[in-house]
Amino acid sequence: MKRFTKQDFPVSNVRRLLEPGPVVLVSSAWKGETNIMTMGWHMVMEFSPSLIGCLISSGNHSFELVRRSRQCVINVPTVDIARQVVGVGNCSGASVDKFERFGFTPVAASEVKAPLIAECYASLECRLADARLVSKYNVFIFEVVKAHAATAPKYPRTIHYYGDGMFMVAGRSLNLRRGFRPGML
Amino acid sequence: MKRFTKQDFPVSNVRRLLEPGPVVLVSSAWKGETNIMTMGWHMVMEFSPSLIGCLISSGNHSFELVRRSRQCVINVPTVDIARQVVGVGNCSGASVDKFERFGFTPVAASEVKAPLIAECYASLECRLADARLVSKYNVFIFEVVKAHAATAPKYPRTIHYYGDGMFMVAGRSLNLRRGFRPGML
Repeated sequence: MKRFTKQDFPVSNVRRLLEPGPVVLVSSAWKGETNIMTMGWHMVMEFSPSLIGCLISSGNHSFELVRRSRQCVINVPTVDIARQVVGVGNCSGASVDKFERFGFTPVAASEVKAPLIAECYASLECRLADARLVSKYNVFIFEVVKAHAATAPKYPRTIHYYGDGMFMVAGRSLNLRRGFRPGML
Repeated sequence: MKRFTKQDFPVSNVRRLLEPGPVVLVSSAWKGETNIMTMGWHMVMEFSPSLIGCLISSGNHSFELVRRSRQCVINVPTVDIARQVVGVGNCSGASVDKFERFGFTPVAASEVKAPLIAECYASLECRLADARLVSKYNVFIFEVVKAHAATAPKYPRTIHYYGDGMFMVAGRSLNLRRGFRPGML
């Protein structure tokens, strides 16, 4: 698998990576254990501080690792590793070392203990900012405290989930800047 | 503009329409006034009840219409009307009748007072289910109480926002069912 060379990316602009709605890989660490899960339910909530809401079902092995550590890394994969992304979502960290099984390379983060995934296009280091929705909805509100992203390609071929095993692959980019008022860009 | 013929769509499966992350048009109504806004920040939260979290900035004219009526319709547009979607996001309902300016056709909903938009691929009638995040984050948690969707094309060419006036157009669909355990489909 290809490893992406990433550079620092402004945390106030992570909407560029997440707002299109890609499936992401959430890496976590707690007391020496690491795990990866596949996640499709997330949304941008604020630019600055950079807030992301996301749902991690309590049935996932990662739930307790994230809840206890109050940290995670949100990694953005591309279609090149779509099969591995599906594989991660179809086995449990309770019995499998997913980094080893799927050949992902863990890279030390700078602000959190959860590892970055070298084979993903971007990695967002997150700290739990608000836990008020965790018990009722399994929704975590994270602040992105450090972000890393590849610079090429400019628009990555992310994958987006329809459900039922079907995905959409990110298609062409479309420049509609002329329709925006200056203050809206 | 083309109007889509829609059929009833199961509310427990609206993830198929929203989870890929498209930009949507939110229609609202309050005391005889209607409006439309463009929205990019939303996420699926539950299948049944069918819950959607979404962020409507308090700076938008639609904010008070939605907050007071406790209802809205989330409409899913396709790339055919991308320019109108951008136009809706770049003017205010305080001074513009957006249905009239952009040529959208309002259609009576069955469960809410906000109108469906005939020119969108799908329309989800929503009632406010939980307002606890409205004051702090402008996040509304809606229950989809009735859904309508076109049956063709099977995978609509939705548009997804990168920010800065740039969009991604939904590309090819990818069948990865073979990688799923039966219980995960």
